[in-house]
Amino acid sequence: MEKAWKRNFIDISPYTAGEQPESEDIIKLNANESPYPPSPEVLKRIKSFDAGSLRLYPSMDALNLRKAAAQRLSQLNNVSLSERNIFIGNGSDDVLATAFRAFFNSDKPILFPSVTYSFYPVWCQLLKIPYKTTPMNEDFSINAADFYPENGGVVIANPNAPTAICQGLEFITDVLEHNSDCIVIVDEAYVDFGGCSAVSLTKSYKNLLVTQTFSKSRAMAGMRIGMAIGDSELTAILDAVKDSYNSYPLDSVAIETGIASINDDAYFKQTLERVISTRERTAKRLRELGFSLTESKTNFLFVQHESKSAKEIFEYLRSNGVYVRYWDKPIISNRLRITIGTDEQMDIMLNLLEKLLKA
Amino acid sequence: MEKAWKRNFIDISPYTAGEQPESEDIIKLNANESPYPPSPEVLKRIKSFDAGSLRLYPSMDALNLRKAAAQRLSQLNNVSLSERNIFIGNGSDDVLATAFRAFFNSDKPILFPSVTYSFYPVWCQLLKIPYKTTPMNEDFSINAADFYPENGGVVIANPNAPTAICQGLEFITDVLEHNSDCIVIVDEAYVDFGGCSAVSLTKSYKNLLVTQTFSKSRAMAGMRIGMAIGDSELTAILDAVKDSYNSYPLDSVAIETGIASINDDAYFKQTLERVISTRERTAKRLRELGFSLTESKTNFLFVQHESKSAKEIFEYLRSNGVYVRYWDKPIISNRLRITIGTDEQMDIMLNLLEKLLKA
Repeated sequence: MEKAWKRNFIDISPYTAGEQPESEDIIKLNANESPYPPSPEVLKRIKSFDAGSLRLYPSMDALNLRKAAAQRLSQLNNVSLSERNIFIGNGSDDVLATAFRAFFNSDKPILFPSVTYSFYPVWCQLLKIPYKTTPMNEDFSINAADFYPENGGVVIANPNAPTAICQGLEFITDVLEHNSDCIVIVDEAYVDFGGCSAVSLTKSYKNLLVTQTFSKSRAMAGMRIGMAIGDSELTAILDAVKDSYNSYPLDSVAIETGIASINDDAYFKQTLERVISTRERTAKRLRELGFSLTESKTNFLFVQHESKSAKEIFEYLRSNGVYVRYWDKPIISNRLRITIGTDEQMDIMLNLLEKLLKA
Repeated sequence: MEKAWKRNFIDISPYTAGEQPESEDIIKLNANESPYPPSPEVLKRIKSFDAGSLRLYPSMDALNLRKAAAQRLSQLNNVSLSERNIFIGNGSDDVLATAFRAFFNSDKPILFPSVTYSFYPVWCQLLKIPYKTTPMNEDFSINAADFYPENGGVVIANPNAPTAICQGLEFITDVLEHNSDCIVIVDEAYVDFGGCSAVSLTKSYKNLLVTQTFSKSRAMAGMRIGMAIGDSELTAILDAVKDSYNSYPLDSVAIETGIASINDDAYFKQTLERVISTRERTAKRLRELGFSLTESKTNFLFVQHESKSAKEIFEYLRSNGVYVRYWDKPIISNRLRITIGTDEQMDIMLNLLEKLLKA
């Protein structure tokens, strides 16, 4: 007999993340993590952390982290941002979920591309937000015009995942020009790897919210820090939602190490250059092996082989200790997403592929 | 002109936490934080933390922390729990918000006492959960019979805050016996300071969920760790909600230090004893000064003076650098909540009160 108290349970199907194998021998190219450690300043900050201060609640608004982020993003984007333009959350998933809840309260569907970050429809389901997906072109690019129809909000990952493609700012501006009556979220999780950021547009478009993360380019996935950049009116509402759900989403160590990471810009740039250089080298060799690739502005490649199926390649690599991402889903079922690791890791993978494809 | 895109903004009024003054000179008795640092094992674990591992996502389910918690709670409550009976979140606020969403999806109101943790109605508002509050007796105790009427769920903080009162297990059992068709949440944020835990009841009542926190008795408010204990069917749904919102609510440092805290049981017990001994001593002196107090099973006192108003005492203490908690709210507007600090801090406060009351 069904237990009576189960009547009121929520009905959902959660997001599925990439496998997290425990073994150290595995080459893990399935979660778009950085192959390099975070800045040495992060390590220093952890070592010098005053554990006694943990008895106190963390800063409720992570103000010093917001200030550091505002300053760095102002420089990067040649724009003047203050801490009031920054919202901080427990990873960009938390930030995006908070934004969905804060801004998408329309009966009209929100719009996002049919191939994009697969957490968007999960949040829509959880938060009961109607949504509609827009079509992909054959080359996985998307069309601004698909975001013209009346809607309850727009979400565009740029660069997009898993397609790796970055649309230019004229695309984002086009979407904004046709959506002055809703909030447009641009999810820039991967922007630091060569994408063009829409942060400067937040000054002229008060309905634009840009989200970024410390998990990829700052190699701090384990620390859970994400942020949103936008007009202070938007960040104030994000704060109100945060303070209605969980007032202290970042612990004290996360706040301090986030600041340490931001303050070490030289290391940040150096790591990005290494990842980008490995990406370009890997892309070239994959093309030589018969793969077609989108032009990646991210820390991963989105690939398809001319003859071998994605599933077969995925399973072959996996059985040889190299984990990449494969989805048994329409449109992308013959594609793989391969995170950029170190040159050595890429060579191991490329050699395995060579062996498989020449067999 | 109202901007069109503001139409779809959420409409909420967030929770207000106690003031967080930055000055070191302040005696902060307004957030129920521990006056003692966390276990030295927590400090050690931070110092030895491998910052390089931050490039990877944390454990999605914080499995090792769940295992440690299950083991310790099994011992404490003389019951057999496994990691499948434990859910871990980013502070018990995150755990409770997740539970509200997971289990309170009825058209009928959920029930909680009219004087209790003020985040409950905030979550109800955010998550659109209808609620009804139950009355308090004159002495701030509550009646099991008030939770008999048909409802969509029950939430009882036990010990309750800010009243500090702990109802016995026969009270909880009574509520459970009359609520076999909904989920009953017992919020045990303060239970370690002398309350009676309902954890063992989760074995016989599969609709009981108990929540606890590392923020108070473990002196880790700055680390944001909370947990829920219940039947594996309940924790599975909590996990599904978590994985539909933010898959990695705890960073790697929080997970590791949480385990370190649990494993140092001697320090945990020692700190509790110190807080309890200071509480009893402070309560005695407050009574001598003309205060009436509820019987506290927490790390705070809920007090009222026979002649001076709570507001006046609050303002006097505040102007002398001692922050306690005061609410300008019905029923409790003439009461103060005073967190137990060190003996020295309590003496400073008591001496100030003596000065004020004899003036």
